[in-house]
This record gives sequence, C-alpha cells and structure tokens, in this order.
Amino acid sequence: MNRRVLVFAAHPDDEILGMGGTIARHTDAGDAVRICCVTDGSSTQYAGNLEILRQKQGEARKAAETLGVSDYVHLDLPDMRLDTLPHVDVNRVVERQIAEFQPDTVYCVQADVNLDHQAVFRSVAVATRPVPRQVVRRVLTYAPTSSTEWTPAPQTWWQPNWFVDITGTLDRKLEAFRHYRSEWRDWPHPRNDRALRVHAEHWGTVVGYDAAEPFVLIRNVEAG
Amino acid sequence: MNRRVLVFAAHPDDEILGMGGTIARHTDAGDAVRICCVTDGSSTQYAGNLEILRQKQGEARKAAETLGVSDYVHLDLPDMRLDTLPHVDVNRVVERQIAEFQPDTVYCVQADVNLDHQAVFRSVAVATRPVPRQVVRRVLTYAPTSSTEWTPAPQTWWQPNWFVDITGTLDRKLEAFRHYRSEWRDWPHPRNDRALRVHAEHWGTVVGYDAAEPFVLIRNVEAG
Amino acid sequence: MNRRVLVFAAHPDDEILGMGGTIARHTDAGDAVRICCVTDGSSTQYAGNLEILRQKQGEARKAAETLGVSDYVHLDLPDMRLDTLPHVDVNRVVERQIAEFQPDTVYCVQADVNLDHQAVFRSVAVATRPVPRQVVRRVLTYAPTSSTEWTPAPQTWWQPNWFVDITGTLDRKLEAFRHYRSEWRDWPHPRNDRALRVHAEHWGTVVGYDAAEPFVLIRNVEAG
Amino acid sequence: MNRRVLVFAAHPDDEILGMGGTIARHTDAGDAVRICCVTDGSSTQYAGNLEILRQKQGEARKAAETLGVSDYVHLDLPDMRLDTLPHVDVNRVVERQIAEFQPDTVYCVQADVNLDHQAVFRSVAVATRPVPRQVVRRVLTYAPTSSTEWTPAPQTWWQPNWFVDITGTLDRKLEAFRHYRSEWRDWPHPRNDRALRVHAEHWGTVVGYDAAEPFVLIRNVEAG
Amino acid sequence: MNRRVLVFAAHPDDEILGMGGTIARHTDAGDAVRICCVTDGSSTQYAGNLEILRQKQGEARKAAETLGVSDYVHLDLPDMRLDTLPHVDVNRVVERQIAEFQPDTVYCVQADVNLDHQAVFRSVAVATRPVPRQVVRRVLTYAPTSSTEWTPAPQTWWQPNWFVDITGTLDRKLEAFRHYRSEWRDWPHPRNDRALRVHAEHWGTVVGYDAAEPFVLIRNVEAG
Amino acid sequence: MNRRVLVFAAHPDDEILGMGGTIARHTDAGDAVRICCVTDGSSTQYAGNLEILRQKQGEARKAAETLGVSDYVHLDLPDMRLDTLPHVDVNRVVERQIAEFQPDTVYCVQADVNLDHQAVFRSVAVATRPVPRQVVRRVLTYAPTSSTEWTPAPQTWWQPNWFVDITGTLDRKLEAFRHYRSEWRDWPHPRNDRALRVHAEHWGTVVGYDAAEPFVLIRNVEAG
Repeated sequence: MNRRVLVFAAHPDDEILGMGGTIARHTDAGDAVRICCVTDGSSTQYAGNLEILRQKQGEARKAAETLGVSDYVHLDLPDMRLDTLPHVDVNRVVERQIAEFQPDTVYCVQADVNLDHQAVFRSVAVATRPVPRQVVRRVLTYAPTSSTEWTPAPQTWWQPNWFVDITGTLDRKLEAFRHYRSEWRDWPHPRNDRALRVHAEHWGTVVGYDAAEPFVLIRNVEAG
Repeated sequence: MNRRVLVFAAHPDDEILGMGGTIARHTDAGDAVRICCVTDGSSTQYAGNLEILRQKQGEARKAAETLGVSDYVHLDLPDMRLDTLPHVDVNRVVERQIAEFQPDTVYCVQADVNLDHQAVFRSVAVATRPVPRQVVRRVLTYAPTSSTEWTPAPQTWWQPNWFVDITGTLDRKLEAFRHYRSEWRDWPHPRNDRALRVHAEHWGTVVGYDAAEPFVLIRNVEAG
Repeated sequence: MNRRVLVFAAHPDDEILGMGGTIARHTDAGDAVRICCVTDGSSTQYAGNLEILRQKQGEARKAAETLGVSDYVHLDLPDMRLDTLPHVDVNRVVERQIAEFQPDTVYCVQADVNLDHQAVFRSVAVATRPVPRQVVRRVLTYAPTSSTEWTPAPQTWWQPNWFVDITGTLDRKLEAFRHYRSEWRDWPHPRNDRALRVHAEHWGTVVGYDAAEPFVLIRNVEAG
Repeated sequence: MNRRVLVFAAHPDDEILGMGGTIARHTDAGDAVRICCVTDGSSTQYAGNLEILRQKQGEARKAAETLGVSDYVHLDLPDMRLDTLPHVDVNRVVERQIAEFQPDTVYCVQADVNLDHQAVFRSVAVATRPVPRQVVRRVLTYAPTSSTEWTPAPQTWWQPNWFVDITGTLDRKLEAFRHYRSEWRDWPHPRNDRALRVHAEHWGTVVGYDAAEPFVLIRNVEAG
Repeated sequence: MNRRVLVFAAHPDDEILGMGGTIARHTDAGDAVRICCVTDGSSTQYAGNLEILRQKQGEARKAAETLGVSDYVHLDLPDMRLDTLPHVDVNRVVERQIAEFQPDTVYCVQADVNLDHQAVFRSVAVATRPVPRQVVRRVLTYAPTSSTEWTPAPQTWWQPNWFVDITGTLDRKLEAFRHYRSEWRDWPHPRNDRALRVHAEHWGTVVGYDAAEPFVLIRNVEAG
Repeated sequence: MNRRVLVFAAHPDDEILGMGGTIARHTDAGDAVRICCVTDGSSTQYAGNLEILRQKQGEARKAAETLGVSDYVHLDLPDMRLDTLPHVDVNRVVERQIAEFQPDTVYCVQADVNLDHQAVFRSVAVATRPVPRQVVRRVLTYAPTSSTEWTPAPQTWWQPNWFVDITGTLDRKLEAFRHYRSEWRDWPHPRNDRALRVHAEHWGTVVGYDAAEPFVLIRNVEAG
C-alpha cells in the first residue's frame, strides 16, 4: 500500500541535506510525496532581493524534481524570523497542508539550534496530535546537516532511532544538492558533495549499509 | 493545619481535566483554594464572540463550584497567544495572584505541547523562586488530559512522582466536567466522562488505589 | 509481506501484560511469532516446587495459544536471579534464539525496576546490534504492567513513542491472561481483567482509539 | 499525626552526611525513626579487623543517639561488595526492615558513583513499589557528601526537588558527625565540621534559609 | 599562549556572581578579557530612571576593574525583555562582539529560569557554531547565583563538568561584588559577601580545593 | 607544559578505534602516554587459545608503537566477563595504574552497550573522584567504533562535547589499526580502513576540520 508523505522544511535545502535519499526512496516506491518549505528562505539574509528569492525557489524545485517530487509547496513566512510570528499563525499553515494533503507520514526538520526549525517542529507537534481520526500515523524528524550537529550537546535530544538505507539513492541526493548553488560551501563545511557522501557513509556504517540517513521517531500509531 | 492552595490554569477546563479530584480533596479538607485561569479561554478560537466567552466562563465557575471552589479568578490574557505577550506581562499577573492570595501550595499546568501551558509554567517558575520569605513552599504540575500525553516523547519531562488518591472525589470530578459542554468530545477522545474515569482508574492501578491523579513535584521546601 | 516476530519475556506473563493485544494482531496478520521466556519463572519464588513450575509453564502455553502462538520457548534461567549470571551466558541464549528463528522484528521487555528485565534487555541490545547482515530490523520494548510503571521516575526512560491499536484483540488479551491464575491479583492491582482493560482503554484515548498498547522504539532500519 | 521514618544507609555515616539535620527534625517532631545501615561498613577496607568494626559501629550508634535515634539497625552485608550479592538477597533484608518497622516514609541513599549506594537504592525501589496496601507512601533519596557530588555529570540524576530547613538542627548534625572519627578528613575534603557547615549553608541560600539539606523525591502517594 | 576571553552576561552582576574568581584568574594570567553585558540592566525594573541606569553601569565597570578588566562593553537591549526581540537582533549583537574581539574562549550565562539568560545563550549557540575557521574553540556556561539554582529541577541541564580553583581570587570576587550596591541582598539571599563565600567554598569541597566556581562545557575543539 | 596521559581500554583496539589520532597528537606534543588495556582481550571468545592471545597482544603493541606509545600495559582480567568480577577488584587495578603513572589526564572507553566498557568506566569514575590532591584533573570518554554507536538510543549519554582535530594524524591511526588483523571486518562494518576514514571525516565536518575524533568531557578541574 502506498504512503502519502509530507515533508516539512523550514528553509530550502533542509530536506535535501537531511533526507534527500529517503525522499528518493519514497518516490521510487510510488509513494505520494509533497515537500512544504515553510519560509521564503531568503527574506532576512537577502532582504528585498527578489532575484535571490527567485533563484533559491528555482533551485529548490529543481532539487525536488531530481528526487522525483513535483509537488513542492513554497510558503512565504519570513526566513530566520519564525520566532517573531504568533505560534498560531505557523500552526495554521502547517495544519492547512495536512488538511489538504492528508498524509499518513510526516517528516519534520529537527528542533535544533536553529530557531526556525524549532518553530516548525512545534507546529508540526500540534498539528499531528493523535486525536481520534488523525490521518497522520507516523511522525519523524530529520537532521539537516550544518545545523543539527551544531546544537549544544547538553540541550539536544537528537539520538537517532530510525535509519534508512540510501545506498541506491545517494547519487540522486548529491545530484539534487548540486542544484543549490547558493547554499554550497567548500569542504570541510558540511554542505557539499564530499561532505554529504561522507555523512551518508558514516551513518551507513552505523547500521551496516553502504549509506544511510538517520531520523528520530516522534510517534508511530499502528491502526487496526 | 489548613493549606492555602492556588491552582494556575491556562484555559478553562485544564484544572478539572488534570486535577479535579485533588481540588475536591483540598476543599473537603478545609483548605482555602483559588483557581486562576490566566487566559480568556476563547478569544482566538471564537474571536469576538462574547456569547461563547460568557458561556465558557459560566461553565468554568459552575465546574469550580461543583468542586467546592468559589474563588475562581478568570483573567483575560489572549488564549492560544500567550507566546505573543512579553514574558514580564505574564509574570506580572501570576505574581499579583501570589501576592494577593499568599498560597503555600501552587499547582501549575504542565509545560507540555501547548505553548500557553509553557508560558504559564515559565511565569510560575519565576514567581515561586525560593527567595527568602517566599510564601510558596510547594510547587506541583498537573497534566490536563488531551494535552500533556500528546507532547512529543523525546521532549517531555512528564514523569509523575506525586499521586493523589481520588477514589472519594472522582464522581465530583466527572460531575464538574459535565458543566464544560463546549469542551466535551466523544470517546475515545480524552475529554468525556468515560475517558476521565478510565484515566483516573489507570493511574489508580499504578499506585494501588481505585482512582488517582498524577503530578510532577517541582519543588518542596520544608520550613523549620 | 509477512513479518517474523520474536518476543522476549523474562517471566511468563510479561508478554501478555505488556503486548498481548499486539501479539494477537501479528498472528491475525499471518506473521510468524515466537515467544521466548528466558527464565523458568518460578525457581526463586517457589524453590524446588516442580508442581508450580509445571503449572506456570502450562498457563504460559495456554495463554500463548489463545493469542494464536504455538511456538512458545520456555528457557530455564533462574527467575529473579539473572543478575547472578554472567552477561555472556544470557547473551548466548538470546543470540541462539535469534540465530534459530531469524526474526526481522524483536520485542523485548522494558528495562525497568525489575533486574531480570534489565538483564534480558541488555542481552537483546547486544544481540540486535546493527552489524552488516543483521536480520533484525526493528527492536521495540513493551511494558509489562505491575512493573514498568513502578520504576523510579528519575531513572526511567519509558516514554512511549509507538502505539498499536488493539481494539480488535483486547478481548483475546484478557482471555489469555485469565489462564495465568497464579499471577492474577485483585483490583486495584494491575494484574486482572479489569485493570488490563482500563490500561488498554487509557492508552487508547492517548492515541485516539478504543484500546491500545504502548511501546518504545529502540531502533528501526529500513533496508533498501 | 506522627510519621514512621525509615532511613536506609549503605555505610555508617551516609545518613549523617546526607540528612543528619533532617533526622533531628523528625525526632524533634516526635516521629518514630529507625536508621538501617545495610553493610558492616568496614569488612572490605579493614578485612578481619574486629576492632575497627566495633569502633565504627560504636561511632554510628553514638551519632544516631545525638540525633535522638536509638533504633539503629546495623546489618552485616559486606561493605563495598554489594554488587557481588544476588539482588534478591539485598531485597530480602530491605523488605524485612519495611515489614518489621512499617514506615510511611523511606529515605534512601542516592544511587550515585558508589555501587553499594546503587544496590541499596535498587532494593529500596523494589521494596517500596506502590502495590495495593503498600505502607510506604513517600520515598526520598539523600546525598551523602563525598559521594553524590562526585558522580560523573552525564550519568547523574541528582537534581534536588525537596529541601528541608535545618537551621535549628545543624549544630546537632555537626555534633553527630564528630563521633565519626574514623571517617573525618581535613578540609577541603567534604567530611569535617567546616565542610558540613558550608554544605548546609550553601543549600540554605538555594532555598532562602540559613541552612538546608537537599533531597530527590522518588514518589509520594497521598492516600484518601 | 595567552587566551582571548569573551564573557557574555545578560545583566550587570551575572558575570561576577557566576565567575568573578575565574575572570580574575584570566586577567592574572595575562589573558585578554572582554565582558559584554547584553541588556541595559535596568530599563524594565526602573523604567525611565536614568539615574539608576548610570549607577548600575558605574557599578558594573568598577566591579570589572576590580577583576582587572577594563574592556567592559555595555549594550542596551531591554532588560527582562529579550524574549520580545527577534532572535536575529540578539544574534547580531553577539556576532558583532565575536567578530570584533576574536575570542578563542567564550563564557555565557547559563540558559536557566531567567528568559534573558536563555535568549543570550541561544544567540551565543548560533554565533559559536563550529563552522570552518570559527575562531571560538571553547564555549562554557557559568551559573549566576540567585538564578541558575532556582531553575525547575526537571527542566534544568545544569550539571557542572568544569571547575576552576579560585582560592587565590575569591577575595577579589567578593570585593568586586561589593560595588554592586543595587544588587546586594541580605543573607540568606545568595547575593552578598557571606553567601558568595559559602558558594565558592561549597564548590571547592566538591573538587578538593578551598574555593571553586562550576561551569558546564558546551563544546571544546582542539585545533591541530 | 607536557601532559601525562593515561588511556584506559577494555579490549585491545578500543583505543585505536576511538582515539588513535588523538593519541598520536599527544605523543607528537611530547606528552607522556600510557595505554592500559584492562582485559586479556580474548579469553572468552577464544578460550584457552594462547596463540590468539599472543597474536592480539602483539597487534596491540605494534599498533601502539605506530602511534608513538611504548608504554602499553596489558592486564589480564577476563574479556567479556568484567561483570562477573567484584567491582572492587576492577577498581584496584585501575587505581594502581593511576597511582603508578600519576596522570593529569585520563581517557576512558565510553560506558556504552558493551558491559566491559561500563565496568571499566565505573572504576575509572571511582578512581578519579576529585578528592583533595587528586592528580587527575581531566577525564574524558572516547567512543570505540562498532560499539558506542550501537547503544540503544534511549539509554545512551553519548553526546560529544569535545573534539580533536586529527587531520595530521589520521594516516597514522589507519596504519595503527592495520596491525589489528584479528579485528578487521569488511566495509560497511565500522572496523576497517575505509570506515575509520569516513568516521574521522564525518566528525571533521561537524567541527570544521578535515578529520576529527569526538569525546565526552566527564570532568575538568583547573587548578590554581
């Protein structure tokens, strides 16, 4: 039975860095996949620069297509400033996505050192509460590299308990990230081809495969 | 020696769902009890609807009276939006309640998946700091059902260490909640007669009684 | 695709109290299920009493059959004394079970206040390490009532993140436990018909179903 | 209503270092207090030296009497070697104490870097499980200085949530410890008059009193 | 090799209460030390009172000079209201300090019950992320007394793993705090000469010295 | 000033897998380094096989020499069976090493899923308690690959807060491990050349270097 998978990112590239290989596995399996990027991704760093805005949105779409995802929703909440919005306003957009797409599986960016990530996770936590008739049965967080690993150690709850073998899709993940020219940084920064491969191979050795991506399971409900 | 008990709720019904039976025990014992509901309880969900506002406030008072509490203070901070208020403004109303009522025991809603609950707890934590001559000697959190149990597992610190036998007051708790028509939801939602009974009996079996309510002790100071 | 499910218990009845409804779901689904009880279940409490030993083993088999499980392996490590055995000796029996049965899914009793439970979990943790070609892909812990809930709050890591709807199998769970006459205790003890029903209904309301069982996911690996 | 208080120590002096002032408060209040020291306190450090054994037991009794406790039970499990005993054997002695003394309140040494402390706590956790008709309603751990504070930071769960004002009994605590000549160490070691006073005053400032002792509440059950 | 040390405080006196003795050790060792106080320290408590503002800033400078620090930067973000500022605005001032001063070591006030402390820590966590060529190699948090110890026990991550012997500088710490007349409170409040001495001596006994200050290491990177 | 560094391993190869690059940095810096392997490393897996025993000890010495360490102490406690020894017996050998070598810095294998690792750590924790005149000022744990990463997620406290750039010594770490023919496993197992390089590069990207090793700081005391 095919899954309906909704991936929440705070910024374009979160979803590739954290789970590009897993997204490709879902599309390969025939699952319906939507990626929803909650912020505009550039308004704070490049205020008023429509050029950059368009460039980044184009990169995001191309990256998604490389992974087989055409359903890419790019919302326009202000990047790096979700903490300035009322929580209910972030809830509203997250809830609308869930109401529209009716996913059974939700992936959300890890609530890490980045406050936008925390805000998106808080709203996903609200929107996926297991009330009767909740359509979402499984919630997982993924770790966008160059963020989750930089969370202060005594505060983090990132201890992965879910792993996906991406041996067969790692190359597509790397290809997808190559579209993100604006986010590319030279090795040994985590955002480049070499670092993404090393990251996948590292997590691969952790679970006995050539390449893997790690996740934290938040909740899984097996319906009757 | 009788206690002076101040119960902080974020929304009307928090205190019944979480500790209705314990409130009745306090009033039965002759303790002075005040319930303080920090938000108006409806302004976000039913914006501008004075009818609903009055209905909910009426429900809250009747529920409190059922438990023997006539000292019910209903403040008007905006429900579901405490995160938009400066922390000092929430502190101020909490501190005023403590200054006025002079409680030795404070119960606060658990800082769970609901951001209003987190805001109220943060302010209670500030207002009850154990400075010299602090009147508050004991702080506990209670878990309003349909909220605390829906907190993401890796983030929660809800591990109850305090339990109250409510065998003798469970019926009054259920009766009190029946006043909350606006909050009632059909089983298997946690907000109805059957679910509240199951909840109390479950926690009862945990500690060897017919019915119980769970709490987390934040701090207790035994004065000389 | 059918699963191969291996359930590790320390004592007869652990598996019914903690996950009887889920076991029945697995057998209903056509999954291959083995239950392995690691200790003899009575040698410490009823030393030298072969009568009791046979009675309890008979109860265990009947309970398992009620859930559709005929593959019940009863080992004879000394009950309440696993802490006196070398860790490698417990590892050996656990590893042999896994080597023989080749499960993809392992359920283990939660490492709670009971030291036998801790010992079994420690060995399951070793035996299911995700080395290359590890057959076990998923490890979960279940909470036998009258044990996990009695773990000291500041030490426990029991925060369930996995839930199974057992609406359709709760009756069979209760029927299975009725075979355990030697373990039955009167309400409000957790080991009787009424308490097991309350427990299941409580966890049901937590996730929006009539009845459920809670688990902690230790590790899940999605193979390519 | 007077309490029945049972204090478990692993070694003579644990109870003075950790809660001497609180013990004196209990006896002042007319509570029935028993101290039970689980190990002989010297067999490993001073093997075969009966002289030392008698000296330490004498010190322990005099210290207890200074605090108003004549009911001092000195068991003879091997000190520094509780990890070599079967868990059930430690359980047995702890359970017998509880059966005999029928305490409503139990204090246990914190499960810290000292393995004997962990063993005693494990058995207290078992013996005080909240089964129906459990007489023990409250379980707290105390921190013997020169042990709990030396636990590796990432492993400890020592975060005190319970404090007792010992302004009126600190002098008696110091007097009691003076009997422990064999355990006295020069400042800045924690086991001497000056260090014990500093410790009490430090915890006093934490909660607004001249002197205090910290505890962790494990469980409190308020009966109906 | 001398260090470049940047100390972030939220309010004037945080740095003295938490690490005055350690600051003096750094200046004694010839390290370059800057203290940066992020808020004006009085605008909320004494709104519009320029007199107080100047008094407190004068106290802060004199206290710093007593410890050998002339590089005291007093920013003017609103005290007790950092939660009302966009996170990026706090980031900006923290990042500017780091860019200007080029520290290898950063001390930050602990993210405790005080929300301003949490806000400063969040921004320090962002500004010190270990990207390639990050100048900051070591990040520690310190605990300003009358704040960190009052954090609700179940929420705090204050478990010190780093200690500094301040036997030789304790007197200067006390002298420095004497300049803070506006913050002085009578014993047993933690903000006075006696309490600061007790605090230092308490932590001294924890690690075997006459006086010490505790810290939590957030991250240390040993460069090649 | 040169350091005196004592590295505790439970089994030969722990120290190379976890911190081979850091050991080489210490010897390059002129620090005195001793490696102490607490178990014989083969008696359980290869009982009675003296050949293997000698082979493994030879491998260990050659590996150590490759890193510049000639002071390699190989004790003979039984491998995979430290849980069967009295805690005081493991303490004794650890304490003797510290008394003899007088290290200021101790590295210990992480207390992870391997019970021998837990036993060694427990004894190191006892032997390095910060009593007055304790010579050990710094204690860190390292993570031997193919062990620490396989610890059940909800139990582990492995959250590294200390990182060492091993760009300059990675090649020597790999060369050292090549001596361990008996422990080599094919990729994607973590014990081979490729996996060790991936591991080091992964942790390198986490902190901005080409290669790094991660640690957890247990305690650091800066003496006056």
